[in-house]
Amino acid sequence: MRMSLSVEELPLAWLRDNCPCLRCRDPRNGQKLFQITELPVDLALGAVRQTADGVEVDWAPDGHRSAYSARWLTANRPDAGDGSGDRRDETGKTLWVAADLADGLPEADWAEYLRDPVTKARVLESVLGLGFALLRDVPCREGQVLAVAETFGYVRETNYGRLFDVRVEPDPNNLAFTGARIAPHTDNPYRDPVPTLQLLHCLSNAAVGGDSGLVDGFKAAALLRAEDPEAFAVLTRIPVPFRFSDARTELAADRPLIDVDGRGRIREVRFNNRSISTLRLPADELDAFYRAYRIFAEITLRPELQLDFRLSPGDCLIFDNVRLLHARTAFEESGARHLQGAYADIDALAGTLAVLLRQRVVAGEEFLDGLAQLFTGEGAGAYLGEAVTMAQHMLQAAAQAEEAGAPGPLVAAALLHDIGHFQGPVSGEELMAGTDNLHSHTGADRLADWFGPEVTEPIRLHVAAKRYLCAVEPEYFDRLSEASVYTLEVQGGPMSPSEVDGYEANPYAADGVAVRRWDDEGKDPEVSAPDFAHFRPLLAALLRTA
Amino acid sequence: MRMSLSVEELPLAWLRDNCPCLRCRDPRNGQKLFQITELPVDLALGAVRQTADGVEVDWAPDGHRSAYSARWLTANRPDAGDGSGDRRDETGKTLWVAADLADGLPEADWAEYLRDPVTKARVLESVLGLGFALLRDVPCREGQVLAVAETFGYVRETNYGRLFDVRVEPDPNNLAFTGARIAPHTDNPYRDPVPTLQLLHCLSNAAVGGDSGLVDGFKAAALLRAEDPEAFAVLTRIPVPFRFSDARTELAADRPLIDVDGRGRIREVRFNNRSISTLRLPADELDAFYRAYRIFAEITLRPELQLDFRLSPGDCLIFDNVRLLHARTAFEESGARHLQGAYADIDALAGTLAVLLRQRVVAGEEFLDGLAQLFTGEGAGAYLGEAVTMAQHMLQAAAQAEEAGAPGPLVAAALLHDIGHFQGPVSGEELMAGTDNLHSHTGADRLADWFGPEVTEPIRLHVAAKRYLCAVEPEYFDRLSEASVYTLEVQGGPMSPSEVDGYEANPYAADGVAVRRWDDEGKDPEVSAPDFAHFRPLLAALLRTA
Repeated sequence: MRMSLSVEELPLAWLRDNCPCLRCRDPRNGQKLFQITELPVDLALGAVRQTADGVEVDWAPDGHRSAYSARWLTANRPDAGDGSGDRRDETGKTLWVAADLADGLPEADWAEYLRDPVTKARVLESVLGLGFALLRDVPCREGQVLAVAETFGYVRETNYGRLFDVRVEPDPNNLAFTGARIAPHTDNPYRDPVPTLQLLHCLSNAAVGGDSGLVDGFKAAALLRAEDPEAFAVLTRIPVPFRFSDARTELAADRPLIDVDGRGRIREVRFNNRSISTLRLPADELDAFYRAYRIFAEITLRPELQLDFRLSPGDCLIFDNVRLLHARTAFEESGARHLQGAYADIDALAGTLAVLLRQRVVAGEEFLDGLAQLFTGEGAGAYLGEAVTMAQHMLQAAAQAEEAGAPGPLVAAALLHDIGHFQGPVSGEELMAGTDNLHSHTGADRLADWFGPEVTEPIRLHVAAKRYLCAVEPEYFDRLSEASVYTLEVQGGPMSPSEVDGYEANPYAADGVAVRRWDDEGKDPEVSAPDFAHFRPLLAALLRTA
Repeated sequence: MRMSLSVEELPLAWLRDNCPCLRCRDPRNGQKLFQITELPVDLALGAVRQTADGVEVDWAPDGHRSAYSARWLTANRPDAGDGSGDRRDETGKTLWVAADLADGLPEADWAEYLRDPVTKARVLESVLGLGFALLRDVPCREGQVLAVAETFGYVRETNYGRLFDVRVEPDPNNLAFTGARIAPHTDNPYRDPVPTLQLLHCLSNAAVGGDSGLVDGFKAAALLRAEDPEAFAVLTRIPVPFRFSDARTELAADRPLIDVDGRGRIREVRFNNRSISTLRLPADELDAFYRAYRIFAEITLRPELQLDFRLSPGDCLIFDNVRLLHARTAFEESGARHLQGAYADIDALAGTLAVLLRQRVVAGEEFLDGLAQLFTGEGAGAYLGEAVTMAQHMLQAAAQAEEAGAPGPLVAAALLHDIGHFQGPVSGEELMAGTDNLHSHTGADRLADWFGPEVTEPIRLHVAAKRYLCAVEPEYFDRLSEASVYTLEVQGGPMSPSEVDGYEANPYAADGVAVRRWDDEGKDPEVSAPDFAHFRPLLAALLRTA
């Protein structure tokens, strides 16, 4: 932290350009209020004062004063790398081959996507990171694809309309509207700007054939770079004349097959053999291009790169059209196959994800505020006949877990294991619903919006663990408190042998037992445990924000 | 022509990839039907035969046969340069400084733009070539800006909506919605793809201040390259973190201020000081960036670069948002200033222009077909008591002009000078309207859709020229034919001295006299003139296609 306060070593124009004062930035919208040309040409540091929160700088020669927080200086120091960035080049992506997705496609149920911001964030993150996601059970209504696009952005209208029907047409202006096989390609390369996202919503797919395929074009380009750097360089340099023409339309874009940014990072791929028009270049450039084009095309066709699947009615595929190549096997033109497609843009999708995450961070803080209030409010009440309050009990259990060196999620589980006892009237809307009949289950369910199974499942099991221990450890029963012996009966008594087998099959069985033992130890009125604030950072780190 | 048929010297893969046969291209939409990987790896030329129309090639080893027309081979030979291209980089633009537009802005009346395809094409061409155009007298209705966008493309919806109001807002999320001065900038650099076109429609502008300015960002970038190549290189290489954030939006794009294509040609400029976030780079890179950024910013602010004007109610400015920087002077927030803006994309605009030109070429051929029919049909009729037909008369006049070495437009004027006599029943809708009272004027007016004033104005003057010559050349009257003497009286007799002065002030006065003299000479039944087909290529070259 100390190092970051040595503003003398920082580039002066950069530091001044980032002055956060109200004269330099509009507080209403964060926009800069000055031109770079308005800064003194002979800008220099005057007095520099360390403050409680960072540093304060008097600038020469104009006497402007800037204050920079230590936090800002640390987060933005020039050697901190180029930051999170816009995640549009290859460094912001997870490149893949088909086998990487053998465990399943990135998918979600449409209703869940609409209901749950975490599910929605996960879907959008998949489109950004993997290049695609699949929504299931989207209503099979005409025009529904537009509603899907509008959940994260804006429809990009093209010559094909706001939406387009992918089915066999009598007089097709595009091969997509025939039954022909379509090799892996990106759409609309003859547009500039090309639509960066495509949606395909399956309304029916009863035809023989017509399966779908996706290829990560960034992966293919990265392979080309590794295997044949000269071919890669050629394809990043030579603009390809993409053309499209029909009775009402005439489009042209001269763009390379592989677009790299100023640092040579892969940023966009356009690949569509159907719409490459005649290149006019010197003969040696044409030879170099065709050699490289063929090698790249061969890579895109490698079977291990292509992820094959079949769209069923209700599926809506969302994919990055400047990265992923999509393909289709041939199908019988007599069969019923009808998709509706639309284009959109990925900048709005990334923005929607960013806002979701921002809102989730705020909601997470509110959730933790609610938990904190439960510990000081309702939690200060009596705990089922024990000599400690509910809050003391849970804090003691968590302290035990912490002292035992348990992993974070298990400490959190110990801390929150009896949350199901709380009626939760005061705050935190997630905690306000329902009453506690099966407190281990209701507690786990209430927490599932915010914590993963490594926190919720030991909580869910901590009552079963008591019944389990009573069955397998005779001496365990002897150590139970009086109240606990009473509740054991209410909860079903010791487990039967078959119940024991069932319990042990649960992957969280051992964690449930661990929480149970800290539960049993946390009932000592003489012990002083840390308060909720002590555990809050741990909980914050475990919150599911996406 | 001969040279282009030496297919042996052409790059093989290129030649084969451009095979126009029905197995290689879908005749319905022109799309390629094969993958580049499907061509034989050991592709070679087999037999090559010259044909009447070009060459026919048998390919080895697969025996495929391709036929290439001589015309195609000539137009697309590899050394012919890279063709017309998509006109998106600097080579497709006319770069300008303010003085280049001193003669007036590229503008058109809205009603004329809607009515006349040539006016529309000229407006769209200005947006493509100069980067902007101004439509006047666009109805001052809310939402009208969307209708303007839809005349050439598709509205690009953003976080600001399908359209946005530029006026003083109580809680602005953008400085545009205050009365502040806005320095030259491009919009939405934090979007990727950035909207490539912007429209601003003025509904009211009664405030003190609030004038508009435009700067050609390509010109500024070209100046930077010429004056400081190192700074130019830095700005093309370093991605700048553009950011925008408000309650509902969070957008990010890391793009350079100057985007060049693979050959180093300027292709896009993004320039907006307000939304540049904190760059995180090594200190030496930051120093290099800030040095170059400042120099570029200074160039954009040079007074000679900025075209200043004021939008009046009804004006709609259309401009290239990845090339032109737009600016606004400060205005009093109490004054009424209200623009409505929208974004769109330039690819569709260029496509609309291409289709207009294509349609215009077809319509031009039809127009010439109609003229040809007039010469063989109605033109074969008697010519006001002369011994020649009207067609013979006009063809003889044109032949005289040609023999005299007159420039093309004047030959065309001689050929078409009596077109106003035709009732024009058979074809060519432009020629079908109206009857001939003042045949020189109606003829000129009928032709004005297709020819410029250098053709139409001598025609308009050729009757006045007779009256003029009778006034200033006593011997001229003596040479007139009997019929011409008769019509002279109907047409007003010799000019008065003041009419003579008026005639001589017309810039086309001499051309009118020249046409008149050929008119007088073209009445000899013994002379055989070339037919209309002889003059058709000349007329085709003079047609106003845009």
